[in-house]
Amino acid sequence: MPRIDAARLWQSLMDLAQVGATPKGGVCRLALTDQDRQARDLVTRWFHEAGLSVRVDEVGNVFGRRAGTDPQAAAVATGSHIDTQPSGGKFDGNYGVMAGLEVVRTLNDRGIRTRAPIEVAFWMNEEGSRFTPVMMGSGAFTGVFTPDFVRAQRDIDGLSVGDELARIGYRGPVPAGEVPGGMFAAYFEAHIEQGPILEAVGRPIGVVAGALGQQWYDVVVTGQDAHAGPTPMALRHDALLATARMIDRVNRIALDEAPHGRGTVGFAQVIPNSRNVIPGEVRFSVDFRHLSQDGLDRMDAAMREGFAALARDCQCEVVLQQVCKFEPAQFDADCVASVRHAAEALGLPHMDVVSGAGHDAVYVSAIAPTGMIFVPCKDGISHNEIEDAQPEHLAGGADVLLLAMLERAGRVA
Amino acid sequence: MPRIDAARLWQSLMDLAQVGATPKGGVCRLALTDQDRQARDLVTRWFHEAGLSVRVDEVGNVFGRRAGTDPQAAAVATGSHIDTQPSGGKFDGNYGVMAGLEVVRTLNDRGIRTRAPIEVAFWMNEEGSRFTPVMMGSGAFTGVFTPDFVRAQRDIDGLSVGDELARIGYRGPVPAGEVPGGMFAAYFEAHIEQGPILEAVGRPIGVVAGALGQQWYDVVVTGQDAHAGPTPMALRHDALLATARMIDRVNRIALDEAPHGRGTVGFAQVIPNSRNVIPGEVRFSVDFRHLSQDGLDRMDAAMREGFAALARDCQCEVVLQQVCKFEPAQFDADCVASVRHAAEALGLPHMDVVSGAGHDAVYVSAIAPTGMIFVPCKDGISHNEIEDAQPEHLAGGADVLLLAMLERAGRVA
Repeated sequence: MPRIDAARLWQSLMDLAQVGATPKGGVCRLALTDQDRQARDLVTRWFHEAGLSVRVDEVGNVFGRRAGTDPQAAAVATGSHIDTQPSGGKFDGNYGVMAGLEVVRTLNDRGIRTRAPIEVAFWMNEEGSRFTPVMMGSGAFTGVFTPDFVRAQRDIDGLSVGDELARIGYRGPVPAGEVPGGMFAAYFEAHIEQGPILEAVGRPIGVVAGALGQQWYDVVVTGQDAHAGPTPMALRHDALLATARMIDRVNRIALDEAPHGRGTVGFAQVIPNSRNVIPGEVRFSVDFRHLSQDGLDRMDAAMREGFAALARDCQCEVVLQQVCKFEPAQFDADCVASVRHAAEALGLPHMDVVSGAGHDAVYVSAIAPTGMIFVPCKDGISHNEIEDAQPEHLAGGADVLLLAMLERAGRVA
Repeated sequence: MPRIDAARLWQSLMDLAQVGATPKGGVCRLALTDQDRQARDLVTRWFHEAGLSVRVDEVGNVFGRRAGTDPQAAAVATGSHIDTQPSGGKFDGNYGVMAGLEVVRTLNDRGIRTRAPIEVAFWMNEEGSRFTPVMMGSGAFTGVFTPDFVRAQRDIDGLSVGDELARIGYRGPVPAGEVPGGMFAAYFEAHIEQGPILEAVGRPIGVVAGALGQQWYDVVVTGQDAHAGPTPMALRHDALLATARMIDRVNRIALDEAPHGRGTVGFAQVIPNSRNVIPGEVRFSVDFRHLSQDGLDRMDAAMREGFAALARDCQCEVVLQQVCKFEPAQFDADCVASVRHAAEALGLPHMDVVSGAGHDAVYVSAIAPTGMIFVPCKDGISHNEIEDAQPEHLAGGADVLLLAMLERAGRVA
């Protein structure tokens, strides 16, 4: 049973983390900046050195292919992203790309051939920090966005994705979504969990069954601002009291949908926000997640009914608007099984999990059989310069990736 | 039964409102600015024209005295303030001073003499907008603050109360708290209600029985910020959820102390305040008011116990600190009765109320028998350029002030 080279994987991650390194040990490598170009050039050089044939598509997604023995076979692919948050870490995204590269290097070292081609991809602008929306490259690849839409997006300085792609040399010739030999036979993505479950339970491998759908809302509660002293309790129109009860309700709605329902109010703005004035207006966000659309629909309905009643009780008005939507994803049963088989074959403790966050794999899952592998990260912390992971966990995840891809691609010798 | 001149009262209010008038119909006349000097000069001229002997104390409080027939008698006084909020209205404070002046003018017109002297005061810096603390002049007069403390306070430009008093010519020679013939035999203050009760109930006179004590707190709830997606509900340390339940608890604690308990959260700041991040910290304010210290103590205890339990439930920490305190005031029974008698004699519908806000009269009540008269203001709105009141309500309040002062001062002829 082949195993990857844990030290080489770790060294590649550390080398890549030098590009855009921050004083606190993190990485700042926003999409399509000079730092992103430098990292793209480095990884592309590594792809070439590993014997991969590289192609770049029209929205800056990069693919490295290792040929298979069957010229007709569709590729088995893996990948992730190498752009980061402004105060990001070394592992988010980068791990998935370096794990894929390590799989190829291991196959090369061992002289292992596969029936289907093996591909390693890095997707353009997953983070969405500089250009929105998030997951832009995989979204264009899978037809969620048109290439024209993607290239027209601008950062706060007015620079467009299209112009920045051309400037850094990554506006490629390949039409988005076009893959030699047809769409991937399977796609796997290895990623740090970005949550606390694997660490809490003490299992180094998460077999990802799917990803939660997301519905985001903007809510405005309107009451009447008034003096805190002279205004009796019964005559108040307290927008913050109504909001407080709504925040508690969001929590209860999520708990009613355990274990896969999640409800979060992360943003709230109080107006006028003065200690002796009853607030006349509060604006806040709601983030609902669930593994099924039925679940999201129940949460949406419970919120609308609950908020209306709570506003009425506080003599306030409430208006809410859905502002963002990601569909729930159920990953391919065979791909998920391949991940589980790999962990079992390696004797690595594992558990089935779902992804609470979005990933490129979620978009890809709509057009190709997909699975994901999670590994623990320290304290569940991500999108932070202190993001950390243990080398043996990263190696274990890459070993699982290797075996799962071999199972799908077919080991010839 | 003598009656004041409603048209003259209204005209004086409108003339005074020209000083510092804002485009939206309000007044901006911060304490000890050139606008305040101009208003002080105008009102002092009116005092002189009404035959009052004027004295200015060392912290800029101004008193106009109409002699009584008994040289030994302590004065019966009234007053309020003529400084305003940055976007204040025409009536807050100004009404009490103009009503007092109108009482004197009416006594003069009718040739009415009183046994005790009559005084009309305007107190320095009631609003506290430019210099904190609030109610500075009446606080120095009643010994809450020393004159040195008051004069040492500075605005955001570093200018001190003492220097500004000297600059505008209102740093007087009279020691704070010194009154010819001894402390007031009684003090009355007429004021707009700054709340919605009188208007809602349809009674033009509020007989003010006392003022709510106030205790203000700063609260910090600390959890752990984390991704809204990958973090399961059970593993969260959601500082905003804990805060939401605390806001609801503040409301319940106030309702449990009906009718005089009030609880308000007017300020809240969420950190990091991003829609897909579980908030790791919330800072918010609590404003408790009650007519008795026992009530405030019960509210304080219920909050401390409740907040600790609610923080624990959400796996958060809570720290709270009392940052401000005003003692509850029970006004003098005889003064309150004089206000009620006056309203009855005039046939004006009235009701007993308490003041939810602080007033100069609350400080004065600690050293002299005190009563207050409230009149309705439109929609209960104050500290706002759209603050408004009906001329007949203002006239009715001034008539009540006239009769109440006459009852305490003793009409001679």
